[in-house]
Amino acid sequence: METGKRVAILSPVAWRTPPRQYGAWETVASNIAEGLVARGWDVTLFATGDSVTCGRLHAVVERGYEEDRSIDPKVAEYLHISEVFEHAAEFDLIHSHYDFMALAYSRLVNTPVLTTIHGFSSPRIMPVYRKYGQGYFVSISNSDRAPGLNYVATVYNGIDLSLYPFQETGGDDLVFLGRIHPDKGVHLAIEVARLSGRRLLIAGIIQDQRYFEEQVKPHLDDLTIRYVGPVDVAGKNGLFAHAFALLHLNTIPERFGLVLAEANAAGVPVVAMDLGSCREIIEDGVTGFLVDNASEAVRSLGRVSQIDRSAWRRRVEQCFSMQTMVQQYERVYATVLELEAKKMS
Amino acid sequence: METGKRVAILSPVAWRTPPRQYGAWETVASNIAEGLVARGWDVTLFATGDSVTCGRLHAVVERGYEEDRSIDPKVAEYLHISEVFEHAAEFDLIHSHYDFMALAYSRLVNTPVLTTIHGFSSPRIMPVYRKYGQGYFVSISNSDRAPGLNYVATVYNGIDLSLYPFQETGGDDLVFLGRIHPDKGVHLAIEVARLSGRRLLIAGIIQDQRYFEEQVKPHLDDLTIRYVGPVDVAGKNGLFAHAFALLHLNTIPERFGLVLAEANAAGVPVVAMDLGSCREIIEDGVTGFLVDNASEAVRSLGRVSQIDRSAWRRRVEQCFSMQTMVQQYERVYATVLELEAKKMS
Repeated sequence: METGKRVAILSPVAWRTPPRQYGAWETVASNIAEGLVARGWDVTLFATGDSVTCGRLHAVVERGYEEDRSIDPKVAEYLHISEVFEHAAEFDLIHSHYDFMALAYSRLVNTPVLTTIHGFSSPRIMPVYRKYGQGYFVSISNSDRAPGLNYVATVYNGIDLSLYPFQETGGDDLVFLGRIHPDKGVHLAIEVARLSGRRLLIAGIIQDQRYFEEQVKPHLDDLTIRYVGPVDVAGKNGLFAHAFALLHLNTIPERFGLVLAEANAAGVPVVAMDLGSCREIIEDGVTGFLVDNASEAVRSLGRVSQIDRSAWRRRVEQCFSMQTMVQQYERVYATVLELEAKKMS
Repeated sequence: METGKRVAILSPVAWRTPPRQYGAWETVASNIAEGLVARGWDVTLFATGDSVTCGRLHAVVERGYEEDRSIDPKVAEYLHISEVFEHAAEFDLIHSHYDFMALAYSRLVNTPVLTTIHGFSSPRIMPVYRKYGQGYFVSISNSDRAPGLNYVATVYNGIDLSLYPFQETGGDDLVFLGRIHPDKGVHLAIEVARLSGRRLLIAGIIQDQRYFEEQVKPHLDDLTIRYVGPVDVAGKNGLFAHAFALLHLNTIPERFGLVLAEANAAGVPVVAMDLGSCREIIEDGVTGFLVDNASEAVRSLGRVSQIDRSAWRRRVEQCFSMQTMVQQYERVYATVLELEAKKMS
């Protein structure tokens, strides 16, 4: 292992790292940074000024632009990304979580840049990936790969298991945890709740206000369908304590789905749409159920009690823990540094 | 003069360079590039792929993102700006017309970067200018300067006088030429037309649709107040032929106002709001009138015939021609290159 090497972790500045509530990319960047520090790496986290790390924090943007509307997102992005590249010579490796934007700087420095692609937001961003396709890339699931990019590995996102303690027993409610957005299928979760006669607790930030107003709000009644707003880690665990199952009926391919691993870690089974990476995270019939529509989801709820809660936790420990993720990234870093050393020699 | 030196002109990619119709920054970048080529400089224009130049064209974005909605502006911007910096070593100087975004790359290359600031779009972009404030800057008017930046000079924008031939006589109409946006005071031009009893011809792109619908469209009648859409150079000259005066009643400080010089070049007097740079372009009572409100504008129309049309053309030739601008930029380039040489020695 290449511990002792100096690595810069470039986190987004939409939210604090780690985020207070929502912020999947910042969560993963934080877990990698903290995991590497624990294993002896010299880590500098480039993130918002209010971020928290056991490594070194380097910040030029005080707060997340999603948390402080006085900050211009574009300005924050330019100041933040350029900063890590201006300090590139101080690092053996830059590990970017900043989408296609950081790639644009990557040829201007000698330090190798590894990019974890947390998702392709639009086909219109692909020209940038094509231009820089010979860089080093990590996919977060085998299903979320684009052709022609130089992937070094797939590394599944890992969660901090200590944050999601195993709960021996659950409750009777269905839980939806995620952004309120058509992609996340909140309307399908509501349909499943109605058909199954179970209460549904909906948590998450409202990303699509119109969708919320038209497809979620009319169903809210404080008894059977409740919206509880965004939740932090404690809030998630509170929901997991009441959970019969987590509903994750996404309508587009899931890229990874951190919340699936979080629920499983707490002993909560997941009913997930069989799209994108869900099949890689959920072992069908073992840690949850993969379904194709709402009525299949309803049927699968009848089989929840047949399976062993602790098995779900064990699978997360093996496959989706911070430790597993960090060890895999260590191997990826070693590969990149070896390839770079060969280029030099 | 430093002719023979290699200069990269970084134009925006919102529109073609030069633009087909609207596109002030692209117009100026084009005039500088073509003027420098004519004077023997080795010029590479970084612009859209459909741009036209007598120098060398370097393009990675095929069309302007305002002209081809399949192009993502952010993607185009990142691909385009990074490209010039990836080729920085091939140039003695990079002359950027790309706002604060290009500054973020400027410390990653050894080639000096000169930025013409075509306007500060928002106070929220100032942190970037502050960070890179020790770079080299040109203001386009003395009024449009921010404190603390290392300004090398003010260089007024220059127009291609051959495009705007002097017209011995004008017409009876009032002309508005500019973006349809509250900043440009189209509603004030309409008020002046009504009060003066003269016909008003309005030309320009609709940038603020709501403003157009609410404050412009209700007044249109095809007889006294007409909207003719966006116009190209020929269209502008056609309007100037009918013009009694150009109304430029901007409601925020003007940064430069190319159209004032274009109108004056054609022999058309300008009635302009006394805000921002208008006072630097218009010589009050000689090449037009500076006013504080619509009723002053109406009164000033009565004095138009007292002044000499050809005097207006002469002032543009002296102060706002491409030739004058290019010669001033040559001096700025020489200063920057000298300062850089001193740093090196």
